[in-house]
Amino acid sequence: MPSEFDLIRRHFTRDTRHTELAGGDDAALMSLWPGCQLVVSTDMLVAGTHFFADTDPRDIGWKTLAVNLSDIAAMAAAPRWAVLALALPEADERWVAAFADGLFACADAFEVDLVGGDTTRGPLNLCVTLFGEVPIGEAVTRSGANVGDDLWVTGTPGLAALGLAHLRGELTLADAAREACLAALHRPTPRVEAGKALRGIASAMLDVSDGLLGDLTHILERSQVGADVQLADLPLERAAALGVPPARAREALLHGGDDYELLFTAPPSQRDTIGHLSQSLGLTISRIGHITDAAGQLALVDANGQRTHPQRLGYDHFS
Amino acid sequence: MPSEFDLIRRHFTRDTRHTELAGGDDAALMSLWPGCQLVVSTDMLVAGTHFFADTDPRDIGWKTLAVNLSDIAAMAAAPRWAVLALALPEADERWVAAFADGLFACADAFEVDLVGGDTTRGPLNLCVTLFGEVPIGEAVTRSGANVGDDLWVTGTPGLAALGLAHLRGELTLADAAREACLAALHRPTPRVEAGKALRGIASAMLDVSDGLLGDLTHILERSQVGADVQLADLPLERAAALGVPPARAREALLHGGDDYELLFTAPPSQRDTIGHLSQSLGLTISRIGHITDAAGQLALVDANGQRTHPQRLGYDHFS
Repeated sequence: MPSEFDLIRRHFTRDTRHTELAGGDDAALMSLWPGCQLVVSTDMLVAGTHFFADTDPRDIGWKTLAVNLSDIAAMAAAPRWAVLALALPEADERWVAAFADGLFACADAFEVDLVGGDTTRGPLNLCVTLFGEVPIGEAVTRSGANVGDDLWVTGTPGLAALGLAHLRGELTLADAAREACLAALHRPTPRVEAGKALRGIASAMLDVSDGLLGDLTHILERSQVGADVQLADLPLERAAALGVPPARAREALLHGGDDYELLFTAPPSQRDTIGHLSQSLGLTISRIGHITDAAGQLALVDANGQRTHPQRLGYDHFS
Repeated sequence: MPSEFDLIRRHFTRDTRHTELAGGDDAALMSLWPGCQLVVSTDMLVAGTHFFADTDPRDIGWKTLAVNLSDIAAMAAAPRWAVLALALPEADERWVAAFADGLFACADAFEVDLVGGDTTRGPLNLCVTLFGEVPIGEAVTRSGANVGDDLWVTGTPGLAALGLAHLRGELTLADAAREACLAALHRPTPRVEAGKALRGIASAMLDVSDGLLGDLTHILERSQVGADVQLADLPLERAAALGVPPARAREALLHGGDDYELLFTAPPSQRDTIGHLSQSLGLTISRIGHITDAAGQLALVDANGQRTHPQRLGYDHFS
């Protein structure tokens, strides 16, 4: 006799693509491609801290997987498998079905197999661990930036932070802007294809989850370099087209979190290649500065060449 | 300027043994041995459901890892790496330090590298994903039991359930019994060496986490067989020596959870090998029955050959 709990578990059982044994045993079994390393990332999402409790469970499902995909993408790796552990305050099958819908929409889009998990009773908590692979020696870490490298970012970071500000009532967005910003917040697109395509091109890379400047400092620390960010080169056209006030848009781009774009460095010799890549992926990739020898120093440079050192970087949240 | 949160994260940063890149980047990197498959298990532990909130955090740390090690052991795999995601209601550094002590005591005992994680604010929740490796084709699953196979169990299951009953005030144990049963409950020993040694010997295997009979039904379902359990052959000597009433000890052995012993099947031709293995590991391994062709049927057979079909199996908890 299946319990309420078995019924819920069934929502997470789907066909797999590249897995020897998924679910129903003590552990899952799978095989890496010969010559590949294993890449692993884990993220825990908690109601109230990472999403509002009344967020559409489809969006929560998508995002729970997407934030981990972004970490794997930032290593230039290919995502392959995920396990999901979740604590639920009650066996709310409707909520679980919608959550599973969103999760599998993301899993299908990026060809990830859900291979196992655990379900328990408790305050709502979602923990995904994602496994991927990358050819040995081709992962891109945070520590490879060199003096003179260009600094690049994918997409148009800041929209998610604007969407969050809107939900918090700190900002009022008109219809089109609201839609775009809430989509960025709730359904971030992990840059999996871009990450893989940047193997051999990017010297250092990470994903922007806690704000562009704050995350940039991680590259500076790990690579023992500095960076100049050119304010005039920030990709603010989209926010401008959506009618967001320029100062607010710039603030969101530099300091806002939750965008899951890739921030990376590459030698200037790669500029043409990156331009072609941007075209072939249909993805904005903007050169926003360069790496300096002023270890640990981050400077914002305005159109007049005036340099300032930001006091505030990103979130200082406990997450 | 490190936050409270960075300080806590530092408690989980230790040297690694067999990992290319652990911590400090978007994801961890490691390499499997050639010819090995990846084996993955995840478990989420919640205060109130899986442990009392006032349990010694060292014990919680040990057990959080041990329950996953047991799943990997039950696949006959070698554990190698773990990631830990935890939600904490507050940044209680003393609690975290003690928890980390227990976790790493277990990680060191079984040579597991903690390679990454996530820390967030929220109701106490501990999620470990453990991954290991096994030579291709040598994993032991739940589905390989054959009619005529013997049924075996490691150790002396039941002690953990007796310890839990003691904590709940349902039973009073004398000093020596209390110590042994609480140790079984709080510091279970995952049977990692036994699991690996049973490659090529066991035909089906799982770990006893929800009660011996309840878990046995998983083997019966997956293997489409039945089982006779010989009540006279149950390993009850230890509980008897500790002064536990025989009926209570048998009840705990058959139905109690949280023991993390291995339950496995093997052809009768392996009896001598298993006997030698028991001696070399210094671990009781008891032959407690055999596999029958009565698919899905589980019978308890007493000393007179009288057969009964248990109504109640194991826990029916939501975890």
